[in-house]
Amino acid sequence: MQGQRKQAINEKSSQTAGLTVTKEQDFSEWYNQIVEKAELADYAPVHGFMTIRPNGYAIWEAIQKNFDEVIKARGVKNAYFPLLIPESFFKKEQEHAEGFTPEVAWVEKDRQETVERLAIRPTSETIMYDAYSKWIRSWRDLPLRINQWCNIVRWEIKMTKLFLRTREFLWQEGHNVFATPEEAEKDALEMLQEYKKLDEELLAIPVILGVKTEKEKFPGAVNTYAVEAFMPDGKALQMGTTHFLGQNFAKAFGIKFLNKKGEFEFGWQNSWGFSTRLIGGLIMTHSDNKGLVIPPKIAFNKIVIVPILFTDSKEKVLKKARELEKALLEFNPIIDDRENLSPGFKYGEWELKGIPLRIEIGPKDLEKESIMLVRRDTGEKKPVKIPEVKKEVLKSLEEMQSSLFKKAKAFLDSSIVEASTMAELKKIIEGKKMVLAHFCETGECEDNIKAETTAGTRCIPFNQKPSSGKCIRCGKPSKRKILFGKSY
Amino acid sequence: MQGQRKQAINEKSSQTAGLTVTKEQDFSEWYNQIVEKAELADYAPVHGFMTIRPNGYAIWEAIQKNFDEVIKARGVKNAYFPLLIPESFFKKEQEHAEGFTPEVAWVEKDRQETVERLAIRPTSETIMYDAYSKWIRSWRDLPLRINQWCNIVRWEIKMTKLFLRTREFLWQEGHNVFATPEEAEKDALEMLQEYKKLDEELLAIPVILGVKTEKEKFPGAVNTYAVEAFMPDGKALQMGTTHFLGQNFAKAFGIKFLNKKGEFEFGWQNSWGFSTRLIGGLIMTHSDNKGLVIPPKIAFNKIVIVPILFTDSKEKVLKKARELEKALLEFNPIIDDRENLSPGFKYGEWELKGIPLRIEIGPKDLEKESIMLVRRDTGEKKPVKIPEVKKEVLKSLEEMQSSLFKKAKAFLDSSIVEASTMAELKKIIEGKKMVLAHFCETGECEDNIKAETTAGTRCIPFNQKPSSGKCIRCGKPSKRKILFGKSY
Repeated sequence: MQGQRKQAINEKSSQTAGLTVTKEQDFSEWYNQIVEKAELADYAPVHGFMTIRPNGYAIWEAIQKNFDEVIKARGVKNAYFPLLIPESFFKKEQEHAEGFTPEVAWVEKDRQETVERLAIRPTSETIMYDAYSKWIRSWRDLPLRINQWCNIVRWEIKMTKLFLRTREFLWQEGHNVFATPEEAEKDALEMLQEYKKLDEELLAIPVILGVKTEKEKFPGAVNTYAVEAFMPDGKALQMGTTHFLGQNFAKAFGIKFLNKKGEFEFGWQNSWGFSTRLIGGLIMTHSDNKGLVIPPKIAFNKIVIVPILFTDSKEKVLKKARELEKALLEFNPIIDDRENLSPGFKYGEWELKGIPLRIEIGPKDLEKESIMLVRRDTGEKKPVKIPEVKKEVLKSLEEMQSSLFKKAKAFLDSSIVEASTMAELKKIIEGKKMVLAHFCETGECEDNIKAETTAGTRCIPFNQKPSSGKCIRCGKPSKRKILFGKSY
Repeated sequence: MQGQRKQAINEKSSQTAGLTVTKEQDFSEWYNQIVEKAELADYAPVHGFMTIRPNGYAIWEAIQKNFDEVIKARGVKNAYFPLLIPESFFKKEQEHAEGFTPEVAWVEKDRQETVERLAIRPTSETIMYDAYSKWIRSWRDLPLRINQWCNIVRWEIKMTKLFLRTREFLWQEGHNVFATPEEAEKDALEMLQEYKKLDEELLAIPVILGVKTEKEKFPGAVNTYAVEAFMPDGKALQMGTTHFLGQNFAKAFGIKFLNKKGEFEFGWQNSWGFSTRLIGGLIMTHSDNKGLVIPPKIAFNKIVIVPILFTDSKEKVLKKARELEKALLEFNPIIDDRENLSPGFKYGEWELKGIPLRIEIGPKDLEKESIMLVRRDTGEKKPVKIPEVKKEVLKSLEEMQSSLFKKAKAFLDSSIVEASTMAELKKIIEGKKMVLAHFCETGECEDNIKAETTAGTRCIPFNQKPSSGKCIRCGKPSKRKILFGKSY
């Protein structure tokens, strides 16, 4: 563990400096600077690609660890399917093919024995379901529940945004086959709740759950369910989706099983996934003008200890700092004992990098047998007696986690405004909020609203109070409201 | 956890049947059948590619978990670098370019904005070191220690062998920069010891450590160190390599740092990696004519409980079996309560799949308040009183782990034979063993021996007793012995 903490220090680059814009001045540039200066990710030499640096990857690992436990407890197993997929596979499910073909990167012909092109996977339905059709024979083989953690390539033409829009990203994709449609749909909805839990309890990002419109659903799905978050710049961010696929893919790929009645039946499928986008959402939701803020539960290094070094008391202070480091080992503390830098510079650097708690310890603190505990999000300083440190650290971490969530939840709640006319809708969207409105759920009105306001449909939220009204665009009767907003 | 164990049962395919060849009759076909019937991996629709099925991937996850803890304790951090690498990057280090270019798969031109081709990574030195050159400025940034778990594509033309030779595989690649050559080389040698520990203590595969010849070393390395295992079919299997890279890549990619004297200096590098090949080595080393044998430490499900079901005692037996399942939860037991299959069939199936221990429990056992505990490797049966089960399970798992290693170690030791003439060498190799012999360490003799005997140099083993002799091929003086053998 010693080595690990040392590393955190060594990795800081000597050129680190604070942010040069505020969140309010230029949100996009503020985001880019945090990603760069907190050393979360870098632009790769190939346009549109990114390198996820250790600080960013540690967040992904924490998400993986948490979610992997959740799915394994649900009976899901991990596996690994090939990176390259034959072109003909994409053509088997019509909607799916149309949805993905434009974004596919292909392998050069001279590396292929066949005339058929090979795609670098933009998603793995086709290659996985081809295998499933060989593995599944009987109802005894069901449910088949497999997840894959892997890299994905989609040749985006929009501008690159690290973690949010890159041509390669990392994700998890769960692909499952059940004996009945009820089981498949139930699981898709339960997984949506698992995503909500991950987003809210771990990442402290409040979300809205709902179903996508016909137009916005996943190519090949019967229903797409989504977890939507809302970012401070007025755009919604999709934090994960789950899909009930019905028998669409099962019919295209021949996934059949002998049911209990002894008849062949096509399997009932669902799928669900989230990606390294979540890290982008995390950065935007919590960070401030000092830099990154990482919710304690997802932070690998939860504490930085900064000893205040003067020549005559240096040894005593360092000794105590190291004792603290040991006592707080479970929080993976970083001890910043660099002698060529001032405490102020160090505070700035670790604030920029988002370490949840700072412990300052100097000769005066030592006299009082205490330290100063500083929270990253509020800046609140609190003197703590040394024997109380661990207890106070735990308390502060918990308070910070819950306070970050509350703050983000208040923002989300205040960002959803009801509208009943197109003029209202337009004004609310321009005011960087989302609109909840009655809607006829047709693609035509969806297209028109998008063209007139730049806002798309996010989802039809669950648990609406029964209401009846008129579509905000065409005036046709509507029984439920939908959420409109700009999006990433 | 309930769900997880249930899954293990459900995934068994209804067509499972035993092996149709023995290890002795046809080793290669025996291996293929185990991989297929224990559901470890499958051939993918694209030639040369594989699907790693849940049972196989669980072994990889156990290896990852173990090794990830090891490297993190050493101060290594994980990161993720892009899948696609510009062609020009490969050309920066001459030997490296020559070594890898023939195996590279390229992305089609129509997905590229530049005239430059993009390679699917066959290894990541070039893309990582380009980034390192931007991240490293001062000795304070060193050591930089980064590891990546990822997929790799190399367009092999030899015949596909699941886990051992496929065009895509999974691996870890650690790439590190130090301020001095001593540190870089020391770390490369320490990592070799970590590999040995992983192989011997976790996978129960004994290995030989040594240095590769000039001819066999990694393209671009100063020294390549290897961990070599020996398979029952008379071929050596490389289980991992570590490389001291000197400043070769640092010079090619401009990785410079300001040293303590205030001068710019090129970084000193090393790298180390192992792949999903390890799973192939595991299968070959321990399995038998009943199927897969998984060393207990690496097995996810360490026990299968088979209740012997008769109509009149079914409920009582099932109840006790479920109590046992709960009591043994830490071993992720599978309970096989399928009613349509005989106990004998179930035993065969779980033996094929390599579950380390089997617990049989029937009405007669119940009367005696005992169960039957059966070891997968030896077949040894032992009645155990129910209150003693956990203790006996632990003991049996430990004994099995150590017994598998001992057996493999005895085989390895008996498979290394000293030779002093070419005739002896040839005969030993034909007898499916390895040869230890004095050697002049020139490429010429290496080529000649390969041509004449099909045996290549494996490594110059460490810790040799000082000896002097003559090269087995040319008769020139030699001060150390080298290991020859056929290889995968």
